[in-house]
Amino acid sequence: MNFTKINPEILAEIKAAIGADKVFTDAESLENYSHDETEDLHYQPEIVVKPNSTEEVSALLKICNAHHVPVTPRGGGTGLSGAALPIYGGVSLSMEKFKAIIDIDTENLQATVEPGVITEEFINAVAEKGLLYPVDPSSKGSCFIGGNVAHGSGGPRVVKYGTIREYILNLEVVLPNGDIIWTGANTLKYASGYNLTQLMIGSEGTLGVVTKIVTKLLPKPTQSVLMMGSFNTNEDACAAVSAIFRAGVTPSALEFMERKGVEWVIKFDDIKFDLKDDVAALLMIEFDGDDLDDIFKNCEKTNVVLEEHSCTEVLFADTASQKEELWRMRRTMAESVKSNSVYKEEDTVVPRAALPKLISGIKEIGTKYGFESVCYGHAGDGNLHVNIIKAGMSDEDWKNKLKFGISEIFELTTALGGTLSGEHGIGLVQKEFMPIKYSEIHLNLMRGIKNVFDPNGILNPGKIMPEELKKSSF
Amino acid sequence: MNFTKINPEILAEIKAAIGADKVFTDAESLENYSHDETEDLHYQPEIVVKPNSTEEVSALLKICNAHHVPVTPRGGGTGLSGAALPIYGGVSLSMEKFKAIIDIDTENLQATVEPGVITEEFINAVAEKGLLYPVDPSSKGSCFIGGNVAHGSGGPRVVKYGTIREYILNLEVVLPNGDIIWTGANTLKYASGYNLTQLMIGSEGTLGVVTKIVTKLLPKPTQSVLMMGSFNTNEDACAAVSAIFRAGVTPSALEFMERKGVEWVIKFDDIKFDLKDDVAALLMIEFDGDDLDDIFKNCEKTNVVLEEHSCTEVLFADTASQKEELWRMRRTMAESVKSNSVYKEEDTVVPRAALPKLISGIKEIGTKYGFESVCYGHAGDGNLHVNIIKAGMSDEDWKNKLKFGISEIFELTTALGGTLSGEHGIGLVQKEFMPIKYSEIHLNLMRGIKNVFDPNGILNPGKIMPEELKKSSF
Repeated sequence: MNFTKINPEILAEIKAAIGADKVFTDAESLENYSHDETEDLHYQPEIVVKPNSTEEVSALLKICNAHHVPVTPRGGGTGLSGAALPIYGGVSLSMEKFKAIIDIDTENLQATVEPGVITEEFINAVAEKGLLYPVDPSSKGSCFIGGNVAHGSGGPRVVKYGTIREYILNLEVVLPNGDIIWTGANTLKYASGYNLTQLMIGSEGTLGVVTKIVTKLLPKPTQSVLMMGSFNTNEDACAAVSAIFRAGVTPSALEFMERKGVEWVIKFDDIKFDLKDDVAALLMIEFDGDDLDDIFKNCEKTNVVLEEHSCTEVLFADTASQKEELWRMRRTMAESVKSNSVYKEEDTVVPRAALPKLISGIKEIGTKYGFESVCYGHAGDGNLHVNIIKAGMSDEDWKNKLKFGISEIFELTTALGGTLSGEHGIGLVQKEFMPIKYSEIHLNLMRGIKNVFDPNGILNPGKIMPEELKKSSF
Repeated sequence: MNFTKINPEILAEIKAAIGADKVFTDAESLENYSHDETEDLHYQPEIVVKPNSTEEVSALLKICNAHHVPVTPRGGGTGLSGAALPIYGGVSLSMEKFKAIIDIDTENLQATVEPGVITEEFINAVAEKGLLYPVDPSSKGSCFIGGNVAHGSGGPRVVKYGTIREYILNLEVVLPNGDIIWTGANTLKYASGYNLTQLMIGSEGTLGVVTKIVTKLLPKPTQSVLMMGSFNTNEDACAAVSAIFRAGVTPSALEFMERKGVEWVIKFDDIKFDLKDDVAALLMIEFDGDDLDDIFKNCEKTNVVLEEHSCTEVLFADTASQKEELWRMRRTMAESVKSNSVYKEEDTVVPRAALPKLISGIKEIGTKYGFESVCYGHAGDGNLHVNIIKAGMSDEDWKNKLKFGISEIFELTTALGGTLSGEHGIGLVQKEFMPIKYSEIHLNLMRGIKNVFDPNGILNPGKIMPEELKKSSF
């Protein structure tokens, strides 16, 4: 890519257009915006810009587009695929000032919100009005709703409530040339030409910068029950997952946790949990609704399935604090692994009945290449997060050999009908693996779409589609 | 557009590639494939082709792309926006031989199906296995599932189960140049680059030809209750709609029917229904689930809301045959109007609380321009079908003046936060109205995407984006 470095003239132009107080060039800012939660990767931007209106985003992009300066949009910085890393320098465009919940429309069960709102704050704000926004990734306490849109983020409730795609109705977007559009309409249904809203979701800030978001909301269920089943093997636990759905019940969450992950959170996150010696894996199963009798009927049906799949113990979390502690265990698992080991994270997803084959395959590949892994995730969706930990692997093997092991994981995922990422995105770190799943024909369609929106290629360059790194790929 | 007419050499090439027995040039075939259910429009193709494999579709498109012959894909021919009309002649590509339900995967609650399967046959096939495919447009008895994908079709259950976008996981697609791709993966979640599955849904056969469809399925609910509320004004009925959701209940269907529509089905479709003199509008409200007690609790809550909104009478359909008759009334309303009057159909959609303003606005516009209208539709989604009937309007006004009235309807829809079509698509007949809602910037993004997939513009040309008709638009 031929990009222009930000020279004093361009910097002055940006400052004049959107205000010098929103442009940062100090060493601390450049360092702070050089990384997200992806491994230990660092790429410094040349400047950090924090606009606080759609018009300012538009003005910034117009200037950068004219000068061929790369712009990398950034949400809460919790991404796991490196999509917010400014790998070509240029501008780190932080959306942190887009903090307004503009409207919670209780007549239509819709909300209009700015992309810099923290997901959990939005969830709580609508909950106060008796409403549910069910998209709650584990990072909900710090991620931005705009980042969730950009990554097609999920979370445990997808299994009952559907993906974020079902909840995003309309988006205000600034295109790379500074033009502003609304992608759709504030309606539950839409059959009015190519669905640009859906195209923006999961496009990782490569097609446009989202500046307003209209979401669908639901009535908030008033009751929930959380069950925890223990298993002596990973495969038993995974096999139980698809059997639960076949029994005709739909949990509001169905999470898998491998023993090693539970051990790590107990050790590093001060979680109180009595992990029996013979337990290899846990399933967390939640049901929600308005009728406790109905919920308990579903729990009973589920109990039968668990017993049939060699479940050794079923716990019920009755109180709010018990539930909260178990959810904390699940939600902090990623951080616990990441803050205590060198790691790489994969976000595999397969049809849910293929989970037992996926997890045993991953372990076999680990044995072959000499890495350990901690697996957990949204098993109800067939979405298994694989934390590869360095453990005894040599630096040399970690650097040069591991990627062949990761390739094998994705070959397995693909062979099982799945794909590379369920909810974390491709970003920087997965793009070299895209050809395992997608043909050149397919990738060229993506590149063509990118070119329609961003002919100068300034917006989040070097993400999703393998291109610049092609020569170094294997 | 500069297209090539199908000459004897091209015809021979097509016959040689996919078999002469699948190519039709007789007058009757050309006439049969010259229209769908859109008004009284007729456009004859030069030939009709009925391939029965992905490879044959690919071979056909390769030839047509090389020679610049237009190809218009066709499903069940039930479309209401003219998307299946071969307006530039060329090939009418009928998918009627793609009839296989390839797999109903009860382990994963997924199915793989060919696009020519009639929607109701698919629904029944999965129901036999205790599963639900909840996308059931009124034309389900004759439309194809491929056409549903192409149009982003809906139906009454969207209000609870979400749109078709939530149920289509993966598509095999033949691109205009004959290349074949799968758009995604057979997974419930997907964050692996631009979502081509979602882009194909609702693209009306302009980007590629769908040859296989992987759907998500749900456990089929075992119980349902249908209520029918009567109102003395359209506005009361429409105002009750959003109030029902605000009461915290989610019906599995919430349909609105204007008196005139009910009169027409009683008269022309031999429906038994006791329509009281003072009734202006009906709401059909269905709840489904596995627990009748739970369903009745929701009915009670709904009853309270209905009373608060001046509902004059609530009927409960207890037996399967009563339910069936009421649903038949709703489902045949469109046909009843269409087969008994010159008409135009609009598929307006707004945020649901805006329905009262929409319907009263439509009536005012009708008074201004001298047309009558019969309104009904999926009120729970804010989706109101407006059948404009010619009645006393002169031929001259119908031809030249009505479009200004339709423009005003779409201006109103847009002002209320809605758009042109909720589930019928843009096709041929709505494309001239697209600029009411969408800027040139927006339309150019759509045109750019079209060009990426179909640089020669051979696939279903002249649909969705106003382009060729620009000069004649107003």
